[in-house]
Amino acid sequence: MNRQMKAAPIERTLPCSLEELYKGTTKKMKISREIADASGKTMPVEEILTIEVKPGWKKGTKITFPEKGNEQPNVVPADLVFIIDEKPHPVFSRDGNDLVTTQKISLAEALTGYTARINTLDGRTLTVPVNAVISPDYEEVVPREGMPIPKDPTKKGNLRIKFDIKFPTRLTSDQKTGIKRLLGQ
Amino acid sequence: MNRQMKAAPIERTLPCSLEELYKGTTKKMKISREIADASGKTMPVEEILTIEVKPGWKKGTKITFPEKGNEQPNVVPADLVFIIDEKPHPVFSRDGNDLVTTQKISLAEALTGYTARINTLDGRTLTVPVNAVISPDYEEVVPREGMPIPKDPTKKGNLRIKFDIKFPTRLTSDQKTGIKRLLGQ
Repeated sequence: MNRQMKAAPIERTLPCSLEELYKGTTKKMKISREIADASGKTMPVEEILTIEVKPGWKKGTKITFPEKGNEQPNVVPADLVFIIDEKPHPVFSRDGNDLVTTQKISLAEALTGYTARINTLDGRTLTVPVNAVISPDYEEVVPREGMPIPKDPTKKGNLRIKFDIKFPTRLTSDQKTGIKRLLGQ
Repeated sequence: MNRQMKAAPIERTLPCSLEELYKGTTKKMKISREIADASGKTMPVEEILTIEVKPGWKKGTKITFPEKGNEQPNVVPADLVFIIDEKPHPVFSRDGNDLVTTQKISLAEALTGYTARINTLDGRTLTVPVNAVISPDYEEVVPREGMPIPKDPTKKGNLRIKFDIKFPTRLTSDQKTGIKRLLGQ
């Protein structure tokens, strides 16, 4: 058997927004490569490769196009590998299949009740009333509003809402007296 | 010159409490080793080694006793190396030359004023009134109440007091109304 050398794989990152990874998308990538004719003469060509990004794909997912590297005599062309990367999102971060977001609220809202309004990655508006007292490490969990799970797209992770509670910077002595009376000391 | 082989150093940890590292201490360590007479015959002996732990020494500090390993013909005895380790402390953790402690306080204390009372590593009681509103990431810094600095024992790091604010788990609607009135919404 005539074993040919194979060139090392060529890796390229494929940055996707969190919206694209949530909904899935089709990416068309233009590549330039050398192909060789029967005589071994090479010429440049351009090709369009199509990548179907599935809902819920994670950073690090690899898509391999076999032997899409440059052709040259006596060498099997390299595989071309695209590696999914996740662009930072202004509102959500991802923790496995969960989405995590932080809401800035006042101390009064934390104590007396707060309704979170969150725009989802597919453009809906969620209204999440929080009835509990919100302490600094409180987390409100909204089931099935996280990322889709690629193996079973009918399932989703959770949305976890964290809270950054803004305390008043100063209080008058009347306010302090009132708080002592209300909350006990 | 007759170069002799030297045995590899023997390392032992020397656990010290934070109090010992703050004040300095003298540790006496009993070691057992073999010594050889002129004929090469070995016999066991016990020795007491004295280690002066200086105020402010850090975990990882090494004290070397040269050639205190076993004696045997034609080999230079190993060095004996003690390595300072810091035992966990129930109240303070160490961050370089700073000491860090966390006080559990109520939300009312955080908002209306709190005085921290802290027992130092040398047995004094510090009284630290905090006049500012204490938010979850507030840190009160007490200068020169941290660990001594070994190179200049007249200087010390800082004591940093953090706060774990216990929120009420539930509030009545009267309390909520009062808080809205006091803090605004």
